[in-house]
Amino acid sequence: MAQKPSIPKGTRDFTPAEMARRNYIFDTIRDVFRLFGFRPIETPAMENLSTLMGKYGEEGDKLLFRILNSGEYLRGVDRTLVENEDYAHLTPAISEKGLRYDLTVPFARFVVQHRNEIQFPFKRYQIQPVWRADRPQKGRYREFYQCDADVVGSDSLLNEVELLQMIDEVFARLGINIVIKLNNRKVLAGIAEYIGHPDKLVDITVAIDKIDKIGLENVNAELASRGLSAEAIEKLQPVLEISGTLSERLGKLESLLKDSETGSMGVSELYEVIGKTEALGLRAVLDLDVSLARGLNYYTGTIIEVKAADVAIGSITGGGRYDNLTGVFGMPGVSGVGISFGADRIYDVLNTLDLYPADTTASTRVMFTNFGPAEAEASLKIIKTLRSHGISAELYPESSKMKKQMGYANDCNIPFVAMIGESELADGTVSLKDMTTGEQLKLTPDALIGHLDF
Amino acid sequence: MAQKPSIPKGTRDFTPAEMARRNYIFDTIRDVFRLFGFRPIETPAMENLSTLMGKYGEEGDKLLFRILNSGEYLRGVDRTLVENEDYAHLTPAISEKGLRYDLTVPFARFVVQHRNEIQFPFKRYQIQPVWRADRPQKGRYREFYQCDADVVGSDSLLNEVELLQMIDEVFARLGINIVIKLNNRKVLAGIAEYIGHPDKLVDITVAIDKIDKIGLENVNAELASRGLSAEAIEKLQPVLEISGTLSERLGKLESLLKDSETGSMGVSELYEVIGKTEALGLRAVLDLDVSLARGLNYYTGTIIEVKAADVAIGSITGGGRYDNLTGVFGMPGVSGVGISFGADRIYDVLNTLDLYPADTTASTRVMFTNFGPAEAEASLKIIKTLRSHGISAELYPESSKMKKQMGYANDCNIPFVAMIGESELADGTVSLKDMTTGEQLKLTPDALIGHLDF
Repeated sequence: MAQKPSIPKGTRDFTPAEMARRNYIFDTIRDVFRLFGFRPIETPAMENLSTLMGKYGEEGDKLLFRILNSGEYLRGVDRTLVENEDYAHLTPAISEKGLRYDLTVPFARFVVQHRNEIQFPFKRYQIQPVWRADRPQKGRYREFYQCDADVVGSDSLLNEVELLQMIDEVFARLGINIVIKLNNRKVLAGIAEYIGHPDKLVDITVAIDKIDKIGLENVNAELASRGLSAEAIEKLQPVLEISGTLSERLGKLESLLKDSETGSMGVSELYEVIGKTEALGLRAVLDLDVSLARGLNYYTGTIIEVKAADVAIGSITGGGRYDNLTGVFGMPGVSGVGISFGADRIYDVLNTLDLYPADTTASTRVMFTNFGPAEAEASLKIIKTLRSHGISAELYPESSKMKKQMGYANDCNIPFVAMIGESELADGTVSLKDMTTGEQLKLTPDALIGHLDF
Repeated sequence: MAQKPSIPKGTRDFTPAEMARRNYIFDTIRDVFRLFGFRPIETPAMENLSTLMGKYGEEGDKLLFRILNSGEYLRGVDRTLVENEDYAHLTPAISEKGLRYDLTVPFARFVVQHRNEIQFPFKRYQIQPVWRADRPQKGRYREFYQCDADVVGSDSLLNEVELLQMIDEVFARLGINIVIKLNNRKVLAGIAEYIGHPDKLVDITVAIDKIDKIGLENVNAELASRGLSAEAIEKLQPVLEISGTLSERLGKLESLLKDSETGSMGVSELYEVIGKTEALGLRAVLDLDVSLARGLNYYTGTIIEVKAADVAIGSITGGGRYDNLTGVFGMPGVSGVGISFGADRIYDVLNTLDLYPADTTASTRVMFTNFGPAEAEASLKIIKTLRSHGISAELYPESSKMKKQMGYANDCNIPFVAMIGESELADGTVSLKDMTTGEQLKLTPDALIGHLDF
């Protein structure tokens, strides 16, 4: 019996119409990456598990898709591991490779492995799918694309300025109004010092990172449960409630953290990044968010998060500066800063706001109908000329009923239909129908080119 | 201790220089696909093993990369399967998904699953990686890209004519001289009838398919060992030795196979495909090769194989017509014809012949050197203007020694270096160095745009 086909849960097929919309996003991001001098790399879908394991926390290790070794994978494997269901030891024995979980760890591995071929500062972009064995739910997939751009091997804050410009350019091109929230890990450390709990930096950041979701009161409760004194929590309140314009808030933060060397350095970095970015001009709204942490212990300087101004959907782009990206692979002291565009959420935002250009789903510019062998032959000759002018064109391959042929053109969003029937064949012309207006013209082949060319 | 990083054998990283060359190939193929009205789809890297198994023969099943089930994958699995190393039953119990092995089976699955969303004839292209647990060797990888274009749901030979035009266009754009070899499965069946062994069609095609590799004598020996009579082998010789121009050979084949209905139909299809293709004009050389089989029992009509005329590297593109692509998934009667471009071999041919355009590896058009904060700020303003004109530009992020900055530009193949130092800052100009000629100019920002624009 024939199987009823399906795909693994959490994965997706993309039809031509969906591909057109997705490619519009990827092409926009890629064009901007290139415009800013970033260069592409690609890494294999499979990495050695030794490269991936231990890089994403215990939870992340569980979410790795593992490749079963080929051949007789049980040969030489201790059977007691099976009897005891000792997955911790059995799994590495029968599986040596896993699917890429993100683009950052493979990038770090790449930088170390190719250190002698790379020009530093290395500005790379990478647009590839990643796989996570997460529980699938709305908007969360087991296979999804990441679009990352990073600069490694340079401490200069000009890199942050460039990345912010790049974010601004991508979303301006896509027509999405955004707010770029900024913070700095050193500010978070300064806050912990300021309230007398430098030892509780992680607890503080974990708690205040949730302020948008759970509100200030619940954050305070969590801080107390994490062992912060009432005094410290009270001292924290003015920091979390800083208000005013961006420059007023920066000023208040500066004066609050003036006794913390780390905190002051964080404020000074924010001043520099914001100042230089604003001097160049930005369409996006820049904002300071001292509760922003993103990924906790990963970032060491600037922290960036982008939200759509007109759709409530969470972060659509994020990033920041990290130290020691490659240390775990034996190459210490490589600092970097990067951003990652969330293609799937951007896709949802564009769909919600209906921001795709009108011609996004169009493929072929003109379809020729097929009235029979002689007409088809004449059509193919003109089609060849159109293509040599860069105009995408196709012939309906069967001389089916006209309704079917026109239906195909309509369903495929083809804007023009050209017809060569008996009379056109006789006088060497082409009838051209504009599928949007319904208007029909009789043209010479030369006039047809002019009409269809952009 | 830090790990020394590596990637799984048979897989590859692609550096920016390699990416530039690969993208040149993919972009060329994609542009031509679009020009001919083909539309993109993508399918997940992972498919259910029920979709993949049994589609590639017993050998193919072994070469599938399998994903280990997540969580406690041994729960409920019969332990005797482990004790007996009964892989045939154990593997399906602990692994339900596998990596895509080619693009054809996922495409068939896609067509059946989305039959109600698809417009037939469905002209789709798909450019994605596939994975095979093959023994890695020179030119054979465990992860490689396929570039497929197929038309399904149309029996018209005009589709063959279009695909041949498309092959011609791709290789003309790449500058590779090619020979397109054609055959037809019905001709092979006709030959089997003609020599009195219609029952031995598979044996005959398997043997004569090797004629290029092992020569006529060895083919004859193999035919004898496969049970063909001396008489039949003798009768086959004039077929294999057909000579003359393409049209002479077609004529001879036609008269040899005139008593076989199937064979005559095959010849008539070849006439139609070749005649219509030649009427439209072709830069490639079209050739008839009655020994061409490709994939044995897969193709049912036209068979296509492309070789580079100037490099001995085997087939660089292949394809053909097949019946019943989707039958195994419960949708009978869908005929189609398709081709697949071998990107890795095309890459090797372009490297061998050094056919890449001069600017393939260039990324950024102009790099601005960095002499310090004030100069960098002035540079970023001009860079912003350049980018708004579509000119890719970047600032070296650190005010390092000039030798280092120029070395970066050189290593990255950046054709122009712009310098804003003290004097340029004073008079509002930019010094521009052409990295190819060494020529240096002092320009106003406006003149700079004109100079760098294409």
